[in-house]
Amino acid sequence: MRSSAEPKGHLYEQVAERMSRLIDKGTIKAGEKVPSVRTLSIQLGVSISTVLQSYLLLEDRGMIEARPQSGFYVRLRARELPPEPMMSAPSRAASTVDIADLSLEVHDAIMDPTIVPFGAATPSDELLPTRKLYRILGSVARRHEVLSNRYDSPQGNLELRRQIAKRSIDWGGSLVPEDVVTTVGCSEALNLCLRAVTKPGDTVAVESPVYFGFLQILEALGLRALEVPTHPREGICLDDLASAIRKHRVSAVFLSANFQNPLGACMPEKNKKETVEMLSEKGIPLLEDDVYGDLYFEGARPKALKAYDRTGTVLLCSSFSKTISPGFRVGWTVPGKYLTQVRRLKLASSISTATLLQMAIAEMLGSGGYDHYLRRIRKAYALQMQMMIQAVRRYFPEGTRVTRPKGGTVLWVEFPQKIEAIELYRAALAKRISIIPGPLFSPKRQYRNCIRLNCGQSWTERIEEAMITLGQLALRML
Amino acid sequence: MRSSAEPKGHLYEQVAERMSRLIDKGTIKAGEKVPSVRTLSIQLGVSISTVLQSYLLLEDRGMIEARPQSGFYVRLRARELPPEPMMSAPSRAASTVDIADLSLEVHDAIMDPTIVPFGAATPSDELLPTRKLYRILGSVARRHEVLSNRYDSPQGNLELRRQIAKRSIDWGGSLVPEDVVTTVGCSEALNLCLRAVTKPGDTVAVESPVYFGFLQILEALGLRALEVPTHPREGICLDDLASAIRKHRVSAVFLSANFQNPLGACMPEKNKKETVEMLSEKGIPLLEDDVYGDLYFEGARPKALKAYDRTGTVLLCSSFSKTISPGFRVGWTVPGKYLTQVRRLKLASSISTATLLQMAIAEMLGSGGYDHYLRRIRKAYALQMQMMIQAVRRYFPEGTRVTRPKGGTVLWVEFPQKIEAIELYRAALAKRISIIPGPLFSPKRQYRNCIRLNCGQSWTERIEEAMITLGQLALRML
Repeated sequence: MRSSAEPKGHLYEQVAERMSRLIDKGTIKAGEKVPSVRTLSIQLGVSISTVLQSYLLLEDRGMIEARPQSGFYVRLRARELPPEPMMSAPSRAASTVDIADLSLEVHDAIMDPTIVPFGAATPSDELLPTRKLYRILGSVARRHEVLSNRYDSPQGNLELRRQIAKRSIDWGGSLVPEDVVTTVGCSEALNLCLRAVTKPGDTVAVESPVYFGFLQILEALGLRALEVPTHPREGICLDDLASAIRKHRVSAVFLSANFQNPLGACMPEKNKKETVEMLSEKGIPLLEDDVYGDLYFEGARPKALKAYDRTGTVLLCSSFSKTISPGFRVGWTVPGKYLTQVRRLKLASSISTATLLQMAIAEMLGSGGYDHYLRRIRKAYALQMQMMIQAVRRYFPEGTRVTRPKGGTVLWVEFPQKIEAIELYRAALAKRISIIPGPLFSPKRQYRNCIRLNCGQSWTERIEEAMITLGQLALRML
Repeated sequence: MRSSAEPKGHLYEQVAERMSRLIDKGTIKAGEKVPSVRTLSIQLGVSISTVLQSYLLLEDRGMIEARPQSGFYVRLRARELPPEPMMSAPSRAASTVDIADLSLEVHDAIMDPTIVPFGAATPSDELLPTRKLYRILGSVARRHEVLSNRYDSPQGNLELRRQIAKRSIDWGGSLVPEDVVTTVGCSEALNLCLRAVTKPGDTVAVESPVYFGFLQILEALGLRALEVPTHPREGICLDDLASAIRKHRVSAVFLSANFQNPLGACMPEKNKKETVEMLSEKGIPLLEDDVYGDLYFEGARPKALKAYDRTGTVLLCSSFSKTISPGFRVGWTVPGKYLTQVRRLKLASSISTATLLQMAIAEMLGSGGYDHYLRRIRKAYALQMQMMIQAVRRYFPEGTRVTRPKGGTVLWVEFPQKIEAIELYRAALAKRISIIPGPLFSPKRQYRNCIRLNCGQSWTERIEEAMITLGQLALRML
């Protein structure tokens, strides 16, 4: 593609700029049709998906609009995207957690493959590198038949730890294999780290809303949660966090700085540094969940909080469940100065992680294809999320708010007050659509008019129809 | 093979009976050589291993003895096998557990494949059905490429739960798939079950000595252990157990009724029934570890304690780590009336167990080859254990005692008082031999002159030499 202006950003952004100029200058007038996606793709020599993404960006900006079975038209008057949610305003008291029953119910539903999966934050089957992974698995099994069927070391497979250490450069770290403990998914990592730094009855400060899986863990360990106001773009509010640890006896803080689940917020690097320094000064352990860090849509990979850790008080947890395999249950942690405790707890908790699966993932990371694959899925997720945001705009009731994540796979939708998310969840399930109701993301079951939508699925008619149905169900509740 | 007496027991027992009569009647006299293993095998038309087993049995009875590079001879005077240990006499006070450091040290050592593995209670590599398992794994991966890479249900893969339920008939159960929760090895099962029925600070009654992995779990969960005297053949002493739960506030009892680790004790069925009834009456949950139940050497499979459970208070835990794959980390639990709590804890602990591995094990169990395989390894383990007991007799110091397990893969050796097991452990490790020192099997670090020996390895010169070395190291400490 040629452009008189200096190329800036992604290709689809360049295409959008070009079309935007044509519209601004009146070359294509209000109400007129813009070139079809296919036509423009041929004209500019770029892919269909690039043109589609650029049109979605223009639609996002209110410049063009889609008309069913016709194409995109220049809008008469800019119609805005739904606004974003505001900074959250959770209850300021620590409380016990009681979401296990609802959470088990929701989990059973989201496992059913005949249900439209807006529930579990899992990648699309066709976006997972399953075939390649299984080819590697077969090869590892043949080459290491004896070793791969034995117990691995409790700390984890050495080659996998080496690969994890090597990739730490990407997020601003400089690990050695001895820093890493492999685990049964990020879940076990979070369990072990929490157990290393707290005892039952302790209070853990969390973002609000917060990943319900973490609340389940708090509940199971008899820990209390203290919610801290969180901004949908910038993450946890530092002033509020500072005030929370001043006013409460906080034993640990849990943060997901990059594309937080469910808000999609990404903390500015300045905030990350300040947060780590503030907590380190007070000697408060910081549990970090970075499972979405590799799934950024633009620019460079955001750093992990761990990158700013000078005192070993950040316990970084992550996994390969969002990028390589949900089913393998292989994750890892870098527990800093709590390494010995975490190693002991790992041995007591599950002895070691499945040997063959660790070996296969190590080889997948080492073989070089992983980064190429990541580039591909980042694009796919960016596009899917854009499509879902547009669908919220088109089909959900007036007054709905929605986040604008720059990475990850989930959207947070805030409906008008009258809509009850748990009712909507049940009504949607009756129509074979799963969503996660907002109250699961709060120990006090707040966010009763919010839902989380998984955008991991490729955009298809089935997905669009499900969004239309969800919108209709919500409208009926008004 | 023909015999004038009515055939009774195993073939090797019949062969032993026949030879025994020839010796008793003076056909072969004291000091004379008995037919070589090969010759007798051809004469009787039975396998070499059958003859070898029968000669070992006769050696066990003190009727014949092996002379290096010569063969077996009728003994001049019966020299007895080392005596068995007595009923254990542990401290009668509950105590906290502190074995994590030693246990992590021991674990790191026993993972090293260049070390003679008398440490970890793992099967011999060549006795594991790895090739068949991997063939099934590959086939499952091809046929269920999409499904097998997804999260499975938190309760566990349905087909695997169905197979586990089906096999419950073997141990006297009658399960349905809904009764079962699959886990990351038996370790996770024990963790979840303990967490379901206790809270930190509670006391759990255990056999003495007891599996050190369980003590690690107690320590990690902040639970106290109360040791109960245990007989090396009959298992826990019922009177002492009754008195323990009368005198202490016991929140749960942990028992391994079949081939207990480390003693190899197998509770008489009558004792099992009484124990379950006694605990059920008092409403005390009974955690059962049955990982060795399938590895009986003679007769029928012993029943699980769970078979006598009428009130749902037995939480049965097991795994496939001793028979199919240590490395897969797939186990299961039948938590009775604590099912809901255990399901919740499983979800919070690791979401679900690795999908592909569960599917492969389910198919391995369903395909029918599993029982055939079990028959083969039971014979192998019986023989290996016999060889190890004979080696203890030949090479270990006078005054050493050793157990006579009727199943499982471990021996418990009690040295004369002067020998310090931890010193012996370190001296052996310097000679590239791993053993587990006795103090790991007691929260109070008793059994300081005992060790556990893994008999999972096929009998080879390397193994015999390691036993000779161990004996020499022990002798030097006297």
